[in-house]
Amino acid sequence: MRPRPPLTPLIAALPSTVPFVGPEAQERERGRSFRARIGANESSFGPSPRVIARMEAVARDMWMYCDPDNFDLKVAVAAHLGLSADNVVIGEGIDGLLSLVARMYVAPGDAVATSLGAYPTFNFHIAGVGGRLVTVPYENDRESLDGLLAAIAKDKAPLVYLSNPDNPMGSWWEADELVRFIEALPETTMLVLDEAYGELGPASALPPIDISRPNVIRMRTFSKAYGLAGIRCGYAVAEAQVIRDFEKIRNHYGVSRMAQIAGVEALADQTYLQSVVARVASGRRRIAGIAEANGLKPLLSATNFVTIDCRSDGAFALKVLQALLSRDVFIRKPMAPRLDRCIRVSVGLDHELDIFAEELPGALAAARGN
Amino acid sequence: MRPRPPLTPLIAALPSTVPFVGPEAQERERGRSFRARIGANESSFGPSPRVIARMEAVARDMWMYCDPDNFDLKVAVAAHLGLSADNVVIGEGIDGLLSLVARMYVAPGDAVATSLGAYPTFNFHIAGVGGRLVTVPYENDRESLDGLLAAIAKDKAPLVYLSNPDNPMGSWWEADELVRFIEALPETTMLVLDEAYGELGPASALPPIDISRPNVIRMRTFSKAYGLAGIRCGYAVAEAQVIRDFEKIRNHYGVSRMAQIAGVEALADQTYLQSVVARVASGRRRIAGIAEANGLKPLLSATNFVTIDCRSDGAFALKVLQALLSRDVFIRKPMAPRLDRCIRVSVGLDHELDIFAEELPGALAAARGN
Repeated sequence: MRPRPPLTPLIAALPSTVPFVGPEAQERERGRSFRARIGANESSFGPSPRVIARMEAVARDMWMYCDPDNFDLKVAVAAHLGLSADNVVIGEGIDGLLSLVARMYVAPGDAVATSLGAYPTFNFHIAGVGGRLVTVPYENDRESLDGLLAAIAKDKAPLVYLSNPDNPMGSWWEADELVRFIEALPETTMLVLDEAYGELGPASALPPIDISRPNVIRMRTFSKAYGLAGIRCGYAVAEAQVIRDFEKIRNHYGVSRMAQIAGVEALADQTYLQSVVARVASGRRRIAGIAEANGLKPLLSATNFVTIDCRSDGAFALKVLQALLSRDVFIRKPMAPRLDRCIRVSVGLDHELDIFAEELPGALAAARGN
Repeated sequence: MRPRPPLTPLIAALPSTVPFVGPEAQERERGRSFRARIGANESSFGPSPRVIARMEAVARDMWMYCDPDNFDLKVAVAAHLGLSADNVVIGEGIDGLLSLVARMYVAPGDAVATSLGAYPTFNFHIAGVGGRLVTVPYENDRESLDGLLAAIAKDKAPLVYLSNPDNPMGSWWEADELVRFIEALPETTMLVLDEAYGELGPASALPPIDISRPNVIRMRTFSKAYGLAGIRCGYAVAEAQVIRDFEKIRNHYGVSRMAQIAGVEALADQTYLQSVVARVASGRRRIAGIAEANGLKPLLSATNFVTIDCRSDGAFALKVLQALLSRDVFIRKPMAPRLDRCIRVSVGLDHELDIFAEELPGALAAARGN
């Protein structure tokens, strides 16, 4: 074989198969479009009309580089949360920020704690720096705070991941429980608290932001409630020194000018946001009703999706998923043991939930082999 | 001091000051806007009207995640270059791709060869993985191919960076010289050939693309000739296995849906691209004429900027730069020894070059202390 530039040992050891299969790839493989796109926890309600108008207006300005400081958006986020811009860093979605956190806090061989079945992109980025994942099973469909604390102590993990509200289960912890968790953390363990769905659940699930604490990074996004998943913009809030440390390695020109402008405008339209929150709550009730009408058990959700217990095993739920996909309904499902008995349905537009309601009985019958 | 989560030793050792100061930051500091934005090698002519119309039309679709495969854009790039999509990876501008290449090929302590005064973002990303930069001085305002080969051999560098056409000098090597350079590289040394300005110079400066060779990665962008710097989209072309290796660590949802769509449309409007190339050539001649009329020496350029020898030392050129900034003309200058005698002026709109022509004599007089 011809000699070639060797990858670093760390990268050479990584698998080249990746966990990211979007609905577009499935459509290409199937050769036809989905009729209902309710699988990726996107916001079918779209961004605010004000945001759309602003994006249209600035399209012609895209010849200019983005501001590498993300200044206007940092200021807007800080004002929105009552913080200083020194406590905010903007990234290419939460995913981009997770990649940076992995590089900042995880050396090869370090243990990193997360829940078994939690966000796979976090795991992907931990693998990318040679971290060693320590996974803790969910308990009663919630991430196990005590289990995570035990894993951190046992493995001396410098980093732990928790999403609240949780994806893929839709469950959540109330703020006081989270505060207890945070206070029980070793001071040298960094917590990534992923609040991607934070705007969509009860306010009581969000602990007050304490930016004096150097071991918590809160992450939020414009991808979910704000309806801007395609623009790639998220942010992290933390103590100022933590934020400064991101500067050492982040891609300073990574967040597009369009994303920065859209983010500022999105934050400015809280009226629209509240209308989306109400529509999502209504959609959750509708999905739960459809599930119950079919003898399934919807889980309570603080997100823009409902996870549905199919009342059988993982193999059965997988068949339900496949039967829905074959009926042109794009949904997803958890794959970890115990969680895998469920399917996960995002709140879509009314006509999409109509299609889900129409197709679910047939999909269940097909999964049962009837 | 309160204990805190430690950064990895590699990240802890990095400086927290960063080299990225955009014109927006300068405007904030000055408290007023620039009248001519001709410093960042953006395309003042903007993107194609077709691209603008397409971005406007899809703004409302940004609630959907981007395709993590970047499929349509990869296919379009491949078709444009006569390659397979397996030879293409899309990234958040060339900057994002450089960060990945650093992680893929550079282990802590490895030597990496580049030219003294070449692209600082490359250096930033090499520092971010603990690489050790080995810099080779320019010769006659061109990157030194022989010098780079010697540095690679001496330091056993697994990675070398070369931009052609070059930033910040605007100079270039003809294809046959580059082919000689590539053939002289050790087979285990990866070359990043940054062709960000590739569409703007003579076609004879671009060697044929040989995707059978596993040690060359060609990088191009929509930021320059295509006028889409703010949308953050670039691509790399290489042998298929090299491309697959990017999959191991890239942020699969890093390139926005807007960027992917704009990129496809931009490639489809080659008529517009050619009109920009012609306008840039005309703008270069205009800048050169202004420089000569003021007793300065414009360097030949294959890019969308002209680097101007101020016929004195670095201190003098710095004064010229500062005097232009104070006159609300945003330009930049090289800072490395020998190159620092120059200022760098991007091709702008006619009225911006008018302002440059008006202000240059006063700026020179101020720099001379008159």
